[in-house]
Amino acid sequence: MKYCNNCGTLVDLRIPEGDTLPRYICSACNIIHYQNPKMVVGCIPEWENKILLCRRAITPRRGFWTLPAGFMENAETLVQAAVRETMEEANAQVKIGDLYAIYNLPDINQVYFLFRAQLLDLNFEPGIESLDVKLFKEEEIPWDEIAFRVIRMPLERYFDECRQGQPHFYMDTIEDIHR
Amino acid sequence: MKYCNNCGTLVDLRIPEGDTLPRYICSACNIIHYQNPKMVVGCIPEWENKILLCRRAITPRRGFWTLPAGFMENAETLVQAAVRETMEEANAQVKIGDLYAIYNLPDINQVYFLFRAQLLDLNFEPGIESLDVKLFKEEEIPWDEIAFRVIRMPLERYFDECRQGQPHFYMDTIEDIHR
Repeated sequence: MKYCNNCGTLVDLRIPEGDTLPRYICSACNIIHYQNPKMVVGCIPEWENKILLCRRAITPRRGFWTLPAGFMENAETLVQAAVRETMEEANAQVKIGDLYAIYNLPDINQVYFLFRAQLLDLNFEPGIESLDVKLFKEEEIPWDEIAFRVIRMPLERYFDECRQGQPHFYMDTIEDIHR
Repeated sequence: MKYCNNCGTLVDLRIPEGDTLPRYICSACNIIHYQNPKMVVGCIPEWENKILLCRRAITPRRGFWTLPAGFMENAETLVQAAVRETMEEANAQVKIGDLYAIYNLPDINQVYFLFRAQLLDLNFEPGIESLDVKLFKEEEIPWDEIAFRVIRMPLERYFDECRQGQPHFYMDTIEDIHR
């Protein structure tokens, strides 16, 4: 951030009075421009003993597989975000179930939220951000071609828990996201 | 938002190609300035059969009681945010427990996260944003002086569930926040 988005003047980076962290502050109108983490919301769409994955058509990790997920928008709820992302990336309709996993990614100022979800039918096809959309049994999952650790880790846990009974909500942190 | 914070030029509000929502886009450098919901994180600090509330020293709702909670910062986790806010507002040390409640507030582009927490000792005192900090039994809670519905609703549920056994995680939405 270099300029104030309210008045167009240059901003300073300094700690405001009574605060503890440096913030971008406008040198003319004095507005403080706070920066906060973003929420990424998605789901694990289930159909019988299979789950739906999307093959990414966009960078980063083009060609790799992921769950439908994306940045939450203003004016929506977590569940609405998960439904919308699944429609955008897979043209798939889902009924969202329990929240399954929260992942803190403090290195990149993101928090991931993954819900369990039921596919409502088999009418799905790639959205503009996907090359392919496909149902996978556990033994068919292309583990070496999963786009991100924040997707692979909850999926591994999900299948482990499915084998042992049923998946339960948990929260975790990936500290070294660039590893 | 009127100006690009990257180059200081005026922004336009329009739907980018391949997108579905209007965004602020710089008319010179073409950067798209996305706006996303913010996370508010706090806890219910418990001590025996009492909980800790803070009386607000700041607007809005100055003089009303609330749980320690505030905007999550970049580079922290949800738990770290809850610990930090409790220290800032009540100078209280807590051990954070299970996530208790998530509230979507789509009208104001916020999502609230409240954890259960154990106070580690009785050394607490008002931080700069609090007029007072005090432990309350259920029958002592000043229900008509709770600052926000998003605090009163989970507290009512929390005490109901405590009486019936123990509190369990849930998610809810407050649709008409300005009512």
